[in-house]
Amino acid sequence: MSDETPAQTRLTHLDENGAAAMVDVGDKAETRRIAVAEGFVKMAPETLALIRAGEAKKGDVIGIARIAGIMGAKRTHELIPLCHPLLLDKITVDVEPDDAMVGLKVTALARVSGKTGVEMEALTAVSVACLTIYDMAKAADRGMEITGIRLLSKSGGRSGDWHAEA
Amino acid sequence: MSDETPAQTRLTHLDENGAAAMVDVGDKAETRRIAVAEGFVKMAPETLALIRAGEAKKGDVIGIARIAGIMGAKRTHELIPLCHPLLLDKITVDVEPDDAMVGLKVTALARVSGKTGVEMEALTAVSVACLTIYDMAKAADRGMEITGIRLLSKSGGRSGDWHAEA
Amino acid sequence: MSDETPAQTRLTHLDENGAAAMVDVGDKAETRRIAVAEGFVKMAPETLALIRAGEAKKGDVIGIARIAGIMGAKRTHELIPLCHPLLLDKITVDVEPDDAMVGLKVTALARVSGKTGVEMEALTAVSVACLTIYDMAKAADRGMEITGIRLLSKSGGRSGDWHAEA
Amino acid sequence: MSDETPAQTRLTHLDENGAAAMVDVGDKAETRRIAVAEGFVKMAPETLALIRAGEAKKGDVIGIARIAGIMGAKRTHELIPLCHPLLLDKITVDVEPDDAMVGLKVTALARVSGKTGVEMEALTAVSVACLTIYDMAKAADRGMEITGIRLLSKSGGRSGDWHAEA
Amino acid sequence: MSDETPAQTRLTHLDENGAAAMVDVGDKAETRRIAVAEGFVKMAPETLALIRAGEAKKGDVIGIARIAGIMGAKRTHELIPLCHPLLLDKITVDVEPDDAMVGLKVTALARVSGKTGVEMEALTAVSVACLTIYDMAKAADRGMEITGIRLLSKSGGRSGDWHAEA
Amino acid sequence: MSDETPAQTRLTHLDENGAAAMVDVGDKAETRRIAVAEGFVKMAPETLALIRAGEAKKGDVIGIARIAGIMGAKRTHELIPLCHPLLLDKITVDVEPDDAMVGLKVTALARVSGKTGVEMEALTAVSVACLTIYDMAKAADRGMEITGIRLLSKSGGRSGDWHAEA
Repeated sequence: MSDETPAQTRLTHLDENGAAAMVDVGDKAETRRIAVAEGFVKMAPETLALIRAGEAKKGDVIGIARIAGIMGAKRTHELIPLCHPLLLDKITVDVEPDDAMVGLKVTALARVSGKTGVEMEALTAVSVACLTIYDMAKAADRGMEITGIRLLSKSGGRSGDWHAEA
Repeated sequence: MSDETPAQTRLTHLDENGAAAMVDVGDKAETRRIAVAEGFVKMAPETLALIRAGEAKKGDVIGIARIAGIMGAKRTHELIPLCHPLLLDKITVDVEPDDAMVGLKVTALARVSGKTGVEMEALTAVSVACLTIYDMAKAADRGMEITGIRLLSKSGGRSGDWHAEA
Repeated sequence: MSDETPAQTRLTHLDENGAAAMVDVGDKAETRRIAVAEGFVKMAPETLALIRAGEAKKGDVIGIARIAGIMGAKRTHELIPLCHPLLLDKITVDVEPDDAMVGLKVTALARVSGKTGVEMEALTAVSVACLTIYDMAKAADRGMEITGIRLLSKSGGRSGDWHAEA
Repeated sequence: MSDETPAQTRLTHLDENGAAAMVDVGDKAETRRIAVAEGFVKMAPETLALIRAGEAKKGDVIGIARIAGIMGAKRTHELIPLCHPLLLDKITVDVEPDDAMVGLKVTALARVSGKTGVEMEALTAVSVACLTIYDMAKAADRGMEITGIRLLSKSGGRSGDWHAEA
Repeated sequence: MSDETPAQTRLTHLDENGAAAMVDVGDKAETRRIAVAEGFVKMAPETLALIRAGEAKKGDVIGIARIAGIMGAKRTHELIPLCHPLLLDKITVDVEPDDAMVGLKVTALARVSGKTGVEMEALTAVSVACLTIYDMAKAADRGMEITGIRLLSKSGGRSGDWHAEA
Repeated sequence: MSDETPAQTRLTHLDENGAAAMVDVGDKAETRRIAVAEGFVKMAPETLALIRAGEAKKGDVIGIARIAGIMGAKRTHELIPLCHPLLLDKITVDVEPDDAMVGLKVTALARVSGKTGVEMEALTAVSVACLTIYDMAKAADRGMEITGIRLLSKSGGRSGDWHAEA
């Protein structure tokens, strides 16, 4: 899933000496930026059935995973060492049962008017939502797997729009 | 990877009304508990080569991902709504290039003497380390994928030992 | 609501010079401690009806307030300057419509095996849940009032059991 | 105290499906916004006397409650799930003895130049200051009550100015 | 000030491969541990006079620095990558004018019953208190210097007692 | 090192009553601001040799101190009570062995386009990096001293440029 030609020939978070540094965004323009990411939690069919049965009553696993993802996105810059703090305009997290892959599919959209992209915020929201699903269902199924966390698209910023290959 | 029979017939984080609740661990024994988890960041071969070239100089992507994973594990209970705070005895995070899968493999081990398991701490360490790798290499390769995050083993506690199937 | 005779003649968080200090709990015994607290969000009848209508669909205001209260309780020692960190065994938050007072009633229970009481954790859970309700309904009703936040009971510890007067 | 007609017929934090979402503020104008909120901690007369006696020496309960309120306001978006992060221009917290109601009155003012209002920051500052007062005086008086937390006024933003009814 | 013979011939936070790791404290005994640290903020005599004049009124610079140090100590494990979380029994911070050195002297004491020492908590409390003093006086004097932050003594734990040389 | 004439005759964080307050920056212009700060960790020659030997292998003490400083800078407003939150454009931390003073020299640069200066962010980065160095080497040398933390220069903002005297 990653056969693009790398867009740059060096890693932007390493300076000319190879030491880690936050990219200087002081001269970047404030533009409207959007990023969408997704991920999955694969599980046993019985586990998915348990979660669905819960939903029928109170919806908690999915509802709590969504909130955890939203709250996690707001803390991205605390978790990821070289991420800039930013003022999210919006973050949404959707969690849906997926019968084909047997599990829950998580999708997050992050939006900002700023100097830096929001890819990491969208990916962090997905990751924290997936971890929350694992936590809430782990007593029933420790063999669940969090998989396929990737960026689907991003727009805005100097590097322009980008879409994952299908 | 998840064909066990669920060990319980209900989700422990939902109470009898289906509402979310933190499990009461007041009557659980303090035992020595260990959990090991892993995950991968798949990437283009050119991206892996860039990271390796960086390592040859200063080791930053891998070193920073390890630190981010360790620090992330300490904040698990802040990120995952129904996780208990606990006093980690130890957390280690290893990151290694994997040529077969083309990317980096992340492994985390968490240890505690406490009333609750440390599966979520190990899984959170892996997730945050993977996100950090993505962040540091994303200017070169937006198509990377975080995948295969799962528990490898856990020991200690009432539910006993558990090992993932190969 | 507060006509007890004060149990002590000085404030324990002020030292002999009147300067603020965290109480030393090093010599206190680890006992099982429980605290229960409550609070209310008074609102216009139309606002309560809106929340109830939402509940009929997806339950979000109440569900999110519960999660926010639980997560807030875990951060009590970060918010309250002289509170000790502790390892909560359990925290529950309940939110229920109250037609007599017109609004939502929030109740929280915190439990710990430790050297310090969990009154502040229960009260913080109630406060954060009430603030979350306000936030989610404020576009409809800025005149809501958070009121009646108080301790209902506590047990365990050197000062023994305590119950609020009815 | 809440007899306004609700200004909107749905809750803005629930989307068309009734699921929780952060309001998108990407198209809102950056305006100067102010919010003022208040709250009370009712206590036994002896408790108020103790606090006043402490003030005469070093001022700690009131001084610490003010700082806790200011610091709490800066973390509003971490505590309230659907609150946006914002860059506070100013936050002030005042705490004054109130002999009529027997207790301490807390008032907070928050100001921002941004796309979202600061009502929640003002209310959170009040709540955290009240909790801090409770914490510092609770050894003398567990029967204190936090009450009357409400918005007094707000200005700026699309919905315009608003004042609480007396 | 540091002419001891190093007590160990390798750095405990680096594993056998030289990679960073949290020390495993799982087999350490829970003992009562105390650490005391100090530091100074040197300033112009006029600045010290301003702070003293403020103290005469409301005591804020010193009072706020003390609270900031206490709160900072509770977050040591979040700031220092390889520090273990622990349950502080007590932390005190004292700030006193020092006419000989011209400035403020900060002293912190941390106490815990646990498996790891509290040197870092004491040193972090001192550092955050010094930074807070700098912040509050910097408009008057940007040339202040934070200096002499060191451990004065520690007791408890496998490595026994230690006192700084005078 | 602090013989300037104080630029102001009162402390800006105290209001006219001497009570603590965050400075209102609502009317300040958004300008490009830079601050540079430095500090030292003095140690025994054997300790410096140990760190250098580690660097030859994996570079961890210096690399981890740099990351800890960067991450600490992002949390300045959480640690320092009256600091404003801000959106750092860039933060860099450099750590270099200093044979003359025997120890490690830490330098940090912070940059922002905002209404408030970034002196505290640069000083906090230096402090947290120094504490991290202490933590990682303390098993070998408890007598290390953190010293000479000061602002080297700042530019931007109403008060204009400032440089420390040599």
